[in-house]
Amino acid sequence: VEAQDSARLQELMEPFHAADIADLLEQVDDDDRRALIALMGDEFDGDILSELAEGVREDVIAALAPQVLSQAVLELESDDVVDLIEDLEEPTQETILEILEASDRVAVEQALSLPEYSAGRLMQREVVMAPEHWSVGEAIDYMRAHDDLPEQFYHIVLVDPRLRPVGQTTLGKIMSSRREVKLADIVEESFRTFRVDEEEGDVAYAFNQYHLISAPVTDGEGRLVGVITIDDAMIVLQEENEEDIRRLAGIGVESLNDRTLTIVRQRFPWLFVNLITAILASLVIAQFEETIGAIVALAVLMPIVASMGGNAGTQSLTVAVRSLATRDLTGSNAIRVLRREIVAGLVNGCVFAILMGIIGFLWFGTPMLGAVIATAMVINLVIAGLAGILIPLTLDKVGVDPALASGVFVTTVTDVMGFFVFLGLAGIFLI
Amino acid sequence: VEAQDSARLQELMEPFHAADIADLLEQVDDDDRRALIALMGDEFDGDILSELAEGVREDVIAALAPQVLSQAVLELESDDVVDLIEDLEEPTQETILEILEASDRVAVEQALSLPEYSAGRLMQREVVMAPEHWSVGEAIDYMRAHDDLPEQFYHIVLVDPRLRPVGQTTLGKIMSSRREVKLADIVEESFRTFRVDEEEGDVAYAFNQYHLISAPVTDGEGRLVGVITIDDAMIVLQEENEEDIRRLAGIGVESLNDRTLTIVRQRFPWLFVNLITAILASLVIAQFEETIGAIVALAVLMPIVASMGGNAGTQSLTVAVRSLATRDLTGSNAIRVLRREIVAGLVNGCVFAILMGIIGFLWFGTPMLGAVIATAMVINLVIAGLAGILIPLTLDKVGVDPALASGVFVTTVTDVMGFFVFLGLAGIFLI
Repeated sequence: VEAQDSARLQELMEPFHAADIADLLEQVDDDDRRALIALMGDEFDGDILSELAEGVREDVIAALAPQVLSQAVLELESDDVVDLIEDLEEPTQETILEILEASDRVAVEQALSLPEYSAGRLMQREVVMAPEHWSVGEAIDYMRAHDDLPEQFYHIVLVDPRLRPVGQTTLGKIMSSRREVKLADIVEESFRTFRVDEEEGDVAYAFNQYHLISAPVTDGEGRLVGVITIDDAMIVLQEENEEDIRRLAGIGVESLNDRTLTIVRQRFPWLFVNLITAILASLVIAQFEETIGAIVALAVLMPIVASMGGNAGTQSLTVAVRSLATRDLTGSNAIRVLRREIVAGLVNGCVFAILMGIIGFLWFGTPMLGAVIATAMVINLVIAGLAGILIPLTLDKVGVDPALASGVFVTTVTDVMGFFVFLGLAGIFLI
Repeated sequence: VEAQDSARLQELMEPFHAADIADLLEQVDDDDRRALIALMGDEFDGDILSELAEGVREDVIAALAPQVLSQAVLELESDDVVDLIEDLEEPTQETILEILEASDRVAVEQALSLPEYSAGRLMQREVVMAPEHWSVGEAIDYMRAHDDLPEQFYHIVLVDPRLRPVGQTTLGKIMSSRREVKLADIVEESFRTFRVDEEEGDVAYAFNQYHLISAPVTDGEGRLVGVITIDDAMIVLQEENEEDIRRLAGIGVESLNDRTLTIVRQRFPWLFVNLITAILASLVIAQFEETIGAIVALAVLMPIVASMGGNAGTQSLTVAVRSLATRDLTGSNAIRVLRREIVAGLVNGCVFAILMGIIGFLWFGTPMLGAVIATAMVINLVIAGLAGILIPLTLDKVGVDPALASGVFVTTVTDVMGFFVFLGLAGIFLI
């Protein structure tokens, strides 16, 4: 790259997949990125744009010469263009829509008018369908006669006269059946359709749960309008997991490619909430200033109780949040799970209480201090188990994403209760 | 169920997918589960066994009458049997292997002899292949003539005379081409094969990165031995994400179905490690006992500095761990990411320093106390950003899963440094 050797670069890049080139563009810094794009010249694969992370995509589009951009965009299928532009800013969206041919533009605009994160955004409009009464032979002849079939398809969807899907047959089954066999006789056993306005998360869940490969999408009247394939569902599932992980850690949708200011802004709110809860915990400590003034050892030991509670709470809440996400935790087993958490908190609490009681006694030579920290430990670990399950469940019930907010609430509870129980018991029994 | 009405139950269950029945069996408690299984009678779908979580699967197998179990297992394809039994205990494995017919038993035992989490365990052995010189017509005739084709397949793999895969053609392309077209002329552009001993994580990554639908698996000599499809890759990807989330939270592979004792044992090690790091932090506080004795306000404020550092550190480390998992964080951009984290820590640190400085001053009326907590805040947030990136990177370099261990290290650093800097500065400037 440094030698500005464009021909050599194109030769080097030739064997790489668009996804890898996109990764490369994401990893280099701004100047190198612009230099690379300039060197890649007129041959810019449209797929690279689709593969780029959103932050970088905007930059790359701005760096491309208009005619190179046109060529790249025209290569893409219409559902890829939707993916490409749905998260871009208005002016960039406009630029790309203007490049498209009229018919494609209408399709893209139509897709963009559907609610975000819906099945309609996910689907491709190109579907191979056949009337339900067709035979294998008729289907094969039809496919032979059409050279505008989608690039990838795995099923033929059978539709009734009103274009409502009634079943689907895999290409494999069609291939291995004789020409006179009716398509309707070799349909797949498990068949599911999605409505165009269904949430993409529900679609991805169904693909995962029922091992679907592709499934038809219908409009309000039940007519076939598109098809969703497993690779689209896989991407949604990945995104949802990623979102859960990031929300549990208190970060937004940030990626490695965001500018520093973006990540500062993204992380600020969570840190701010944490500051408030930390001050809340400090207010509890402040109630016991006299007790601490009398026995400074309490200040030394108190973070241990809070920290153990915070950790135990995080363990429980992660299990709860993930079980809610995978729909394993429901009303019917909540009580059983809760009972299990209480017992687990009690058992681990007792073990650590004994351990910490001995350490506290040996360290400061006061048996009563050992007893106080041991009791506080048991109580806080049980509270942690309870809070770790009840808080996500409650948030889920009232419609807040438990991954987003559970962490703050649970650690607030364990911090506040940890300090309160420990210092409170100390005030009663040690002063 | 309470009415013991077996016929009614079967009628109720009829429309449900095996995956849903498995979920139901997981959610009810032990007694109800046994009652349900008894009522389901002789008609136990083998797929339900495959769908069950491991903990419950063992129980259900034990609860099934031997002849019902045989029938259920014999329904399954050989790769499903491998999935089914690979995590079961020896005696249960033996029971099921004995049910199988000789040829299937050999196939299953062969698969089980491959390393766990390898491509070989993931693949199905049934592959549809064709010599590379065949035409579309020959392929279709071949498929028509064979009625033992796999249930689901999407490609025909082209092989050379030594059975080495050289490309693959989608069924869709075959369908839409005329009989005389050579298969070799309609192969897919991007074609990847996996070796039988490749890690399943790498396979899943490639499926996701290159949008593969299915890909051939080869043995040591490069001969075709099986095929991996996207649904298998999707499961692996899900498992890896789940593992990352759970490891970040310090829990093992536990599920809602584990017994209380199992989860106590699983959570204990992490809590124990946390106890040690908490004691480490306490030892730091103990060094400043005199300072705290003189100014008790320090004990009230010190958890705030540590807690903010811990949170900021968790944010950075989650970004780092996920970027490592998705292979976005590499040697080439590590320095840039690190620089970004330092600046982000500095900026957010300054904002919170001002905020906390004012609060500290207003609360306790000592301007110097405000200055001390403000300075400690900035320093600890920068340290948090640094530790949050450097620790996962280092762990990854030395071959430890960063998701597993980063959390402990980062919070230890931010706790220890938080207390040390805050109390140390206080000791110098306030006493």
